[in-house]
Amino acid sequence: MKKKYISSIDEFKLIDMIKNDFTKLNLKNDNNIIVNIGDDCFCFKIGQKKIFITKDMLIENVHFKKNWIDPQDLGKKAVEVNISDIAAMGNVKPKYIFIGLGIPPTTSKIFIKKLYKGLKMTCDKYNMVIAGGDTVRADKIIISITTIGIGKTNKIIRRNNARVGDLIGLTNTFGDAGAGVDLLYKYGPKHKYNKYERFLISKQNNPKAKFNESIMISKHLTSLIDASDGFYVSVNLLAKNSNKGADIYIEKIPISLSLKKVIKNKSEQIKYALFGAEDYELIFTVSTLKAKLIKEILPSISYVGRINLSKKVKYFYNGKEKKVKYSGYRHF
Amino acid sequence: MKKKYISSIDEFKLIDMIKNDFTKLNLKNDNNIIVNIGDDCFCFKIGQKKIFITKDMLIENVHFKKNWIDPQDLGKKAVEVNISDIAAMGNVKPKYIFIGLGIPPTTSKIFIKKLYKGLKMTCDKYNMVIAGGDTVRADKIIISITTIGIGKTNKIIRRNNARVGDLIGLTNTFGDAGAGVDLLYKYGPKHKYNKYERFLISKQNNPKAKFNESIMISKHLTSLIDASDGFYVSVNLLAKNSNKGADIYIEKIPISLSLKKVIKNKSEQIKYALFGAEDYELIFTVSTLKAKLIKEILPSISYVGRINLSKKVKYFYNGKEKKVKYSGYRHF
Repeated sequence: MKKKYISSIDEFKLIDMIKNDFTKLNLKNDNNIIVNIGDDCFCFKIGQKKIFITKDMLIENVHFKKNWIDPQDLGKKAVEVNISDIAAMGNVKPKYIFIGLGIPPTTSKIFIKKLYKGLKMTCDKYNMVIAGGDTVRADKIIISITTIGIGKTNKIIRRNNARVGDLIGLTNTFGDAGAGVDLLYKYGPKHKYNKYERFLISKQNNPKAKFNESIMISKHLTSLIDASDGFYVSVNLLAKNSNKGADIYIEKIPISLSLKKVIKNKSEQIKYALFGAEDYELIFTVSTLKAKLIKEILPSISYVGRINLSKKVKYFYNGKEKKVKYSGYRHF
Repeated sequence: MKKKYISSIDEFKLIDMIKNDFTKLNLKNDNNIIVNIGDDCFCFKIGQKKIFITKDMLIENVHFKKNWIDPQDLGKKAVEVNISDIAAMGNVKPKYIFIGLGIPPTTSKIFIKKLYKGLKMTCDKYNMVIAGGDTVRADKIIISITTIGIGKTNKIIRRNNARVGDLIGLTNTFGDAGAGVDLLYKYGPKHKYNKYERFLISKQNNPKAKFNESIMISKHLTSLIDASDGFYVSVNLLAKNSNKGADIYIEKIPISLSLKKVIKNKSEQIKYALFGAEDYELIFTVSTLKAKLIKEILPSISYVGRINLSKKVKYFYNGKEKKVKYSGYRHF
């Protein structure tokens, strides 16, 4: 009998399979669950309060390479990535953080100290309490973080509530982090990079959760998602979860000056913008009535499409429909 | 300059270093924190309710070997280990569980299915909702679990409240799981084991959290700790955290028939009972007044020592003091 390996199915399918499997188990009667498995955070209510939980795992050689990122930046990134999930729920205050570390015994002390420093600095930045710190020996560096947040308002912005006619907005440029990691692949960490290239690499290694942005605009939004898996994947999720479709106007997706300087080919730029992961920008929907207000609050935002009834996400470039096929994010 | 590697300091010291480091960060003013980092669970209050959180990570070749444990048992164990931390807080209801999995792409589907089955069965056993299921690619199998529990009473039983004169009790025998893993080291998973050996191995591979036991007795206790790191380490923690000392009467530590049959040498039996890890029994303290009641509720318990003012943990064997030196739990 031939063994079936999970490498034979693509990773998203595997994760979908697992998620569906786990989700089925969740249909227990629990009236306290406000947001179930499958959103950026899980949320349950207790008394009048809402508790939000999100959990992420970063694994060496899967999510980062040790030589490609400063350990302090790695610590910062691990926390920012988690906060990005909190930001994606709207007005939630991150309160308690649990840090699980797997550390190979050959790791240098200086690496560990810098890693902690990065973790701590970012916990302080968000005024979080480190509530647990479990450290175990491992073959590879593993950073497993759970953040607990508390809802500040009654309104939760989910990824399943986009409405027909809503505009689709982005907090900033897409594709930078994906291009950054490709530079590291191509030229390694010791290459002399120019300032545009360094910008792209910093977007990969030193992302910032759009936490303040979320607080500033979330109450006006109909739906919100953290775009950690890239534009294409995240817009699809938002449309699918909202049971809607969308038209996307590719030329409106903002591309940074650095990406333009480093990647000259226009269609390559677009590929990065659509499929590059880890920008940790937010994608949201808002009614046309409030679109102008949002842009005033946060001038960096761009509107790139509109929600419709079709249940399909269609892409257009200068008015002409373009078939866009998912070309996955290459893992390390 | 010589690099300092963390393998040069022992793992407990490293973990202490990290914990102290993390704990220092915790001295923010947060009146909602009921149990801070360093206990079996972290606890904060929200309104009138108490929320408990515990997080554990199991890593292939560090906490288990893939060929030594049935994947279904591995799934069960991952959850039981987490519930053991919940049990150690007294009367807490585990509610929501977050399962982070790292899975190597070469893992067989049957392995994954069995792993899930074990995870699910145990979540169902405790009537928990799977609230998050994050799955990523990894070189080795990683199971990172966070459980959220809700306090059922106002009383929390901590590890820092043992009182002078209290008796020290154990829920059941010690040393079995440690002897079980040593058998696997010695003879491998395919050896023909006798029933006593199989019992010891099952204690290693198929532990059960003492959750019901905790519910039955915790309200009468002064302190409580999950003995996952073995008797010696856990009693030390309980005494240290309570700012007390203890006399331990070694001959009273219960040793299973199986351990006696497999390990003939008495002093070897004692070593397993003191230093063997992963029995997931509870160690507790109780006033002499209530000791008999506890034994009636739970006949499996044994009293093995008494709390005193000395701040030292002393060991006695048949009335004579014995110097006991920590001989650490060998990791995989």
